[in-house]
Parts: sequence; structure tokens; C-alpha cells
Amino acid sequence: MKTTKTIHLKNRPTGKPELTDFDFTTSEIPELKEGDVLLRSKYVSVDPYLRGRMSDAPSYVESFELNKPIASGSIAEVLESKNSNFSKGDHVSGMLQWKETQVATADGLIKVDPDKAPLSAYLGILGMTGLTAYLGLTEIGKPKEGETLLVSGAAGAVGSVVGQIGKILGLRVVGIAGTDEKIALLKSEFGFDEAINYKTTENMTEAITEVCPDGVDVYFDNVGGEISEAVLFNINTFSRTVNCGAISVYNNTEPPKSMSVQPFLIKKSSSMQGFIVHNFADMHPAGIQQLAEWLDQDKLKYTETIRAGFENIPQAFLDLFEGKNKGKMVVKI
Amino acid sequence: MKTTKTIHLKNRPTGKPELTDFDFTTSEIPELKEGDVLLRSKYVSVDPYLRGRMSDAPSYVESFELNKPIASGSIAEVLESKNSNFSKGDHVSGMLQWKETQVATADGLIKVDPDKAPLSAYLGILGMTGLTAYLGLTEIGKPKEGETLLVSGAAGAVGSVVGQIGKILGLRVVGIAGTDEKIALLKSEFGFDEAINYKTTENMTEAITEVCPDGVDVYFDNVGGEISEAVLFNINTFSRTVNCGAISVYNNTEPPKSMSVQPFLIKKSSSMQGFIVHNFADMHPAGIQQLAEWLDQDKLKYTETIRAGFENIPQAFLDLFEGKNKGKMVVKI
Repeated sequence: MKTTKTIHLKNRPTGKPELTDFDFTTSEIPELKEGDVLLRSKYVSVDPYLRGRMSDAPSYVESFELNKPIASGSIAEVLESKNSNFSKGDHVSGMLQWKETQVATADGLIKVDPDKAPLSAYLGILGMTGLTAYLGLTEIGKPKEGETLLVSGAAGAVGSVVGQIGKILGLRVVGIAGTDEKIALLKSEFGFDEAINYKTTENMTEAITEVCPDGVDVYFDNVGGEISEAVLFNINTFSRTVNCGAISVYNNTEPPKSMSVQPFLIKKSSSMQGFIVHNFADMHPAGIQQLAEWLDQDKLKYTETIRAGFENIPQAFLDLFEGKNKGKMVVKI
Repeated sequence: MKTTKTIHLKNRPTGKPELTDFDFTTSEIPELKEGDVLLRSKYVSVDPYLRGRMSDAPSYVESFELNKPIASGSIAEVLESKNSNFSKGDHVSGMLQWKETQVATADGLIKVDPDKAPLSAYLGILGMTGLTAYLGLTEIGKPKEGETLLVSGAAGAVGSVVGQIGKILGLRVVGIAGTDEKIALLKSEFGFDEAINYKTTENMTEAITEVCPDGVDVYFDNVGGEISEAVLFNINTFSRTVNCGAISVYNNTEPPKSMSVQPFLIKKSSSMQGFIVHNFADMHPAGIQQLAEWLDQDKLKYTETIRAGFENIPQAFLDLFEGKNKGKMVVKI
């Protein structure tokens, strides 16, 4: 039986994940059953939310099993098919295991067209990243023309798209990021009206007040933690917070504490809602269509950080927590 | 010029308010201008949210001024009127100052009928309390038949009404309160399916899981703090939390810390929204009509704790924080 390179979760990380939490191994490739496809991974997405799945704390998303392969959004080529919907040579997107080659059922696999956009784009702007930005902002944030949109993690994969969509929809858009280079990029490249470097800003509450003189109507939150506390002092009545990510606390070993949000929400009749793109699956096709249209009209720009080599997947993942990516981080196999 | 007994805010309380934070004084009663009415207070409402108004911390509701009268929902009799909408002998409800007698403009005054319901009911079940329960639950909680509703501060003025409305709407209703007597009352008097005494329960997370085996779909939160942390481990996907009050943290001297809600909201695509009844003023008339109808059909019961005497208003307010009230606390003048 043939084998393939595979990456297992070896330990549940305590605090920041390390390379030693991953195990490079080989696994067998079983025979295809009726309905299966044999896939070779081409691009693998690494995402902050995977940190939650490595933990077994009750407060996080569904856990990966120890000594089993990790899985994430991936693009693969069909090498062999026993499924009438897919043919040899097709490219597909889906939640795949960290294996060079694997047998998969067709569940959740979507055909993608390498002639319409680069394959990696289907993991980003035309995939989960773009859909998270678009559906999170429109379905939860319910933005109205002329309102102020604040985005944390603004230079990240999701944040940079959220800001651009905010501009398309006619909002004033302010971003928060962690390097001067990112701040410059937000304004010059992605059209943000203002941006704040939280690492060089002493009083975030005041800094936000300054660049959001009319308060914050929609807060698209990718980070949680202290930055989001400062935002609470600036939210408007009936404002909406989209809780999309909390990278600042994913590595905490205990459920993190922060300022109680309830008194602020009460005072402002303000809402917060968590967003996971999988829970809005019925809206994905229309979302991708809208994103593709804007992309085609040159209204959306996206950045990627592409690493190379199957064996570099774990390091690429770790680098997310150091902010070493600009935009979507993917690994080309 | 005539004078009247008046209660001022003397100090901004630090932590728990004390009697010495209030000043009993007299103030002059000015002449009536065109459009004014002269009112004698009959019932004065004391409410936990007033604690927030005594503070000048930026995170809370609009502050009372020092050495000025406190104001709260009150029922008064019209002694004299220079306003064509009100006549001598009418009874009105409105946000009035803590004075025995006062001159008021007609702004926000609503005529109430002592023949249809006891006057104190217009501060409770047919007033802000009932409206808070009804509109908070229906507009923010969006309850659906068959779902599980969890109510904290369940034996309080708002909580006991929320639970009953939940039952009317066909939900499974669970309450949280702080004495065995209250727990018994919730089940025997207000029709709650289950109730938990948080003071005698060691592990609230597990206790909630036990009585909410299908999870929590709607959480009507009157208390915030640790109880609400335990609820987070039990919320369902797409669940809704109504942040109505946070009595557990109103006396904190610093913005209180609690477990970060964001990771929980994200995992469950769950929402939280603050609710202040004043922000839904256009829905008040329809709400009062619905509440009056249920009251008339004996579908709603309410409890009141009525204290007597103008000079006992501050003590009645302080007693809220000791849980000494059952249902709505009012002071009869």
C-alpha cells in the first residue's frame, strides 16, 4: 500500500503552539471506494482559528484529536475519481487533512476554476476569507452608508477585505494594526480612511475617539482582548460588533478575562454577535458571486503570503501569531 | 414661596451606596408657567439602574448631578394644572424628581387610570418593569416556541415577568435566584419549569446543564458577573442573550472584569444585545396593551414590595442590593 507524508497533532499546545506540538509522519493511502476521490494537495490554508481546535478547553471550537491529522481549508487536484461529479485533473476546494495525498469523500468539496482566478485565491478572497469578511460584515454588522466602521486586525486576511467592502458600501473605515508598514498599507493600498498602530499608541480609547469623532457604528473584531476593551468606550447607540476572531487570546491557557462588556452593551442598546462562516453555508454561493464581481471590477485587492513546502505548514501556522503574514497565509505544496 | 421635601445626591457612592450618599433637604416650589402641572408624588420607583446614574464613570448611563435631586419613575397626582391635557385630580406616570411636591412640564407624562389597575402597577407590570420584560424578551431575545429560556435575577421585578411571558409563549423556562424561598416562589407562583439557587450551588455551569439538557436558546440576563459566565458554557448555536441588567457589578469601583465572552459568541454564532426600554419608546403603547390584556386574562402575576414614607426612599433603594425586595420595589408617599 502506498503511503503519504502526514502531519499529526502531537500535543495540545499550552499557550503559544510550538513546532514540537506537531508530528511529521507517514500514513497509508487506502483504496478508493465508490464515491471517493484521490487528491493531491496544492495549497493549504493556515488560520488562527485552528489554534482553538488544537485545544480541548470547553470554550473553544471542536477539537482535533491527538495523533490524528490536522485539517484546514485546502485546494487539491483530483488524481483519480470514483465520483461522477469529479474528474481526473479537476481542482477542488474543501476541508482537507494535512497530507500530501489523500482519499476523500465528496462531502463539502467544491470544484474551482484555475482559469478564473489563481488557485490560492479560492482559499482567500474567493474562499473562507472573503466570505467571512463579506457575510460577517453584511449579515451581522448590517452596515449603512455614512456610518463608521472600525476593523481590528485590519491588515490581516479578513480585515483588509472587510475594510474594502466597507468603502464599497459607502462607510467611513478605520483600521487597527500593529506595524507602521501595515498602517501605511491600509491607507495607500486598501483605501482605509484612517488607521491606528496599537503598538505605538498609549491610549487606545482616546486614539479611537480621535479618528472616529462620530463614534463607532460597526466594529469588526478580529482580535478581542485589550484593543476591544478600548473600542467599548467608543460604541454608538444601536452599534453592532461582529466577533469574528480573538487571536489575542487564542494562546491563553485559561479562559481569558477582560472588562465586562455587559454594562457597555446595556448603555448603548448595542449588540455583539459571533460569526463563523460555516454557519452561513446557504449564503456562500451568492457571496462568492458578489466577491468575484467586485474582484473583476478591480474594486477588491487582496494580499497573500505564500510559503512553499509541505514540511513548512506548521511554521507558517506559528508565524500567524507573530503577525508575520500580510493578508492570507497559504502554503504551496 | 412654598417649599417641599427633596432628596439630593450628596456623594457619588464608591462601591455600595450608603445612606450618607443622600441629602434630605428642602427646595422651593416655583410658580407654574403655562403648560406646567403641579404634582404630588404618590409612588416612587427604586431601581438598580439608578446606581449607574449616581456614578460618573464613563461606562455607565447618564449621571445625576451632585447636590441636585435624584429622579426615577413615579406616579403623582395633579394638584394644579396650566396644561390643557391634564386636570386637577388626574394621576400621571413619568420620570419625576425625588420631591414630595414638584412643578413639571408635561414632557413624558402619561395619564394613568386608578380604576383599571392599582396605581403602583403603573410603575411595575404596566410600566417600565413590564415593558422591559416584554420588549427585551420579544425584540432582543426573539423566543420561539419550544426553546429554552434562562432568566437570571428571576425573582426580581423584571425576571419574574420575563419567565411568565416565556411560559405564555410556549418556552421551557428556567430561573436563577438567591434564596430557597425565591426558588419555591418561581415554581409555585410564576410557573417556572426549574429554578436554581446560585447561593447554594457549587458548580453553576453543571447545574445549568442539568436543568437545561437541550442548552440555552435565550438568556435574559439581569445580573451579569459570575452567573453569566456559567451560562456561556451552556449557550446554543444562534442563541440570544438579552443584557438587561448587571446588578452584580453596579457597585464595582472599577470597570469589572469577567471571562471574555467573545470566544463563546464566536463558537456558537451567538448574540448579546443590551436593552434599555427607553430606546424602544415607539413600542411602549402596544406593549402596555399586550401586558394589560394578559393581566386581565390572569395570565400574569406580579409581586411588589411596597415601603411607606418619602424619607424611606434611599433605604428602599439600598435594600435592592441586599435582595430584600420580592418583585418590584416601590415607595408609597
